[in-house]
Amino acid sequence: MKLVGITMGCPVGIGPEIILNFFSHQNQFNTYFPLVIGDIKRLEEVSADLGFTKRIVLWHPGDEIDIDSIPVLNMSSLLTSNLSWGKPNAETGKAMAGYIEKAVSMIKENWIQAMVTCPITKTAFKMAGIPYPGHTEMLACLSGSSRYKMMMAGSSLKVVLVTIHEPLSKVSSLLSIKSVIECIQVTVDSLKNDFGISNPKVAVCGLNPHAGEAGMFGDEENQTILPAINRCALSAEISGPWPPDTIFHRAASGDFDAVVAMYHDQGLIPFKLLHFSDGVNVTLGLPIVRTSVDHGTAYDIAGKGIAEASSLTAAWHLACDIIDNRTQNI
Amino acid sequence: MKLVGITMGCPVGIGPEIILNFFSHQNQFNTYFPLVIGDIKRLEEVSADLGFTKRIVLWHPGDEIDIDSIPVLNMSSLLTSNLSWGKPNAETGKAMAGYIEKAVSMIKENWIQAMVTCPITKTAFKMAGIPYPGHTEMLACLSGSSRYKMMMAGSSLKVVLVTIHEPLSKVSSLLSIKSVIECIQVTVDSLKNDFGISNPKVAVCGLNPHAGEAGMFGDEENQTILPAINRCALSAEISGPWPPDTIFHRAASGDFDAVVAMYHDQGLIPFKLLHFSDGVNVTLGLPIVRTSVDHGTAYDIAGKGIAEASSLTAAWHLACDIIDNRTQNI
Repeated sequence: MKLVGITMGCPVGIGPEIILNFFSHQNQFNTYFPLVIGDIKRLEEVSADLGFTKRIVLWHPGDEIDIDSIPVLNMSSLLTSNLSWGKPNAETGKAMAGYIEKAVSMIKENWIQAMVTCPITKTAFKMAGIPYPGHTEMLACLSGSSRYKMMMAGSSLKVVLVTIHEPLSKVSSLLSIKSVIECIQVTVDSLKNDFGISNPKVAVCGLNPHAGEAGMFGDEENQTILPAINRCALSAEISGPWPPDTIFHRAASGDFDAVVAMYHDQGLIPFKLLHFSDGVNVTLGLPIVRTSVDHGTAYDIAGKGIAEASSLTAAWHLACDIIDNRTQNI
Repeated sequence: MKLVGITMGCPVGIGPEIILNFFSHQNQFNTYFPLVIGDIKRLEEVSADLGFTKRIVLWHPGDEIDIDSIPVLNMSSLLTSNLSWGKPNAETGKAMAGYIEKAVSMIKENWIQAMVTCPITKTAFKMAGIPYPGHTEMLACLSGSSRYKMMMAGSSLKVVLVTIHEPLSKVSSLLSIKSVIECIQVTVDSLKNDFGISNPKVAVCGLNPHAGEAGMFGDEENQTILPAINRCALSAEISGPWPPDTIFHRAASGDFDAVVAMYHDQGLIPFKLLHFSDGVNVTLGLPIVRTSVDHGTAYDIAGKGIAEASSLTAAWHLACDIIDNRTQNI
């Protein structure tokens, strides 16, 4: 059986318990088996506290997998006395960065085929002096990628963002023909290679109400988005710029394989409405396969045993599907 | 039985056929009966062409209502030879403006209790020299209102917009503490008087991703939206600014009675995803009751008999509910 890594994320967030939850509900693994990259003692404590029963075992590269257990590649030895739910510190920040680094090197060395990440917190990265604003930037750097994009993927809607964490007032000035083309290209490549869609249908959003209504409410559609669509020389059906308020309904009805959105909330408002608990965050354009839960550390409920593993489960299945599709496309 | 006017809208759009469709599916009327304000000859022609069977009869103020018929207050005498589906002209523009003016005066004279509008086209207004950009502005002027807002209403979500048809890049500069307060106030007043909710729960959106995340991605939340919320002295539960990507899921789950959105697509993307065919456009803040279908003239399918009356039906029911609620609140 091949392995896929699950990084534990922030040790004082909901990462440990959603992993335990995932293993307790997911009884059968076929081609791929999950390997936790994290802190074994922390997992054991949380398991005991919350009444989980599956055995947690240490795993080292080369060991056999016991399919009735939770195998853990131990990468930190956090002291219980220093841990408090919802209170990250420099030590937890360093630990969670270590899980991510190890996962990337384990993929490079072919011990694991992909990585699924549990949530981290930017604050703890800062406390530990880790120089990345988040997961995505860290993974791009570690895997040597500059042309990466964030996709939110669900069964009925997939959106890819041209701009992400930017003030709304700056979005217009950040759009360029080049940035829109790049986002469309990365999306098409991923739909083909990662999702196995040979002739993808991609809808590109306009920026303004009614996609500008012939320039009456803004001209980014004519100046930037339409030229970008026209210059894409891809064997795919690229269309747009579409009025943003109706295109997601059409995409969710099956008319398109993915929607390229110009800004964060244009894509995430419809996505989270349709996939509030089973959405997956996928980093497109990396040489490695990485999916992630679509939620944060949820400090307000961490340690209470009420966090659901639905997004982790969806991220797990999607990672396995992407490995299969990439393998078939080689 | 009391009357509610339905204006026919553009004579070469889908207005006539959705009215016929509405009457053919809506067999029982209790307190209120619909009166068409439009062109009787046009309706008769469309009815014959598309095989509708209900009798269409001329109605004059004071006439009895025959509940097995479609009563029409005739306001134009368009010549068939001058009409072509999807091709508005100065004559159709003048006619559709006349239906709206008549409806307002009929409400003032107490012949009808409310008006439900079928779609018009701005182009034909221009051709006819009618000086309004759309329905809402015309109704505000005719009824002497300056403090009006557009609500999109559905069974699971209601959104009210602070800014409407504006380029996205201008939204930030158009927001002010005053404009946000006014929108919240009009929303609360309407939820109480028109929707009969005594202690409304209103969610106010942030403008930026994650509602700015403590100013990291924009400061309109701290500079404008939060001060506006804090200054609202209303007997209602006003909360926010909320992260735009998750608040609509909560609102649709019942946590809020309405969401105040900062810009067109922030409100309409989630609304049209949930209420693509049964949404209603309501003009809040008018002394008269006005609801509208939530779609356009649909020139591409006009005259083909395939346009659905679901939005008109929803608009009809909501108009009747609002009259009842306003009456009870007097």
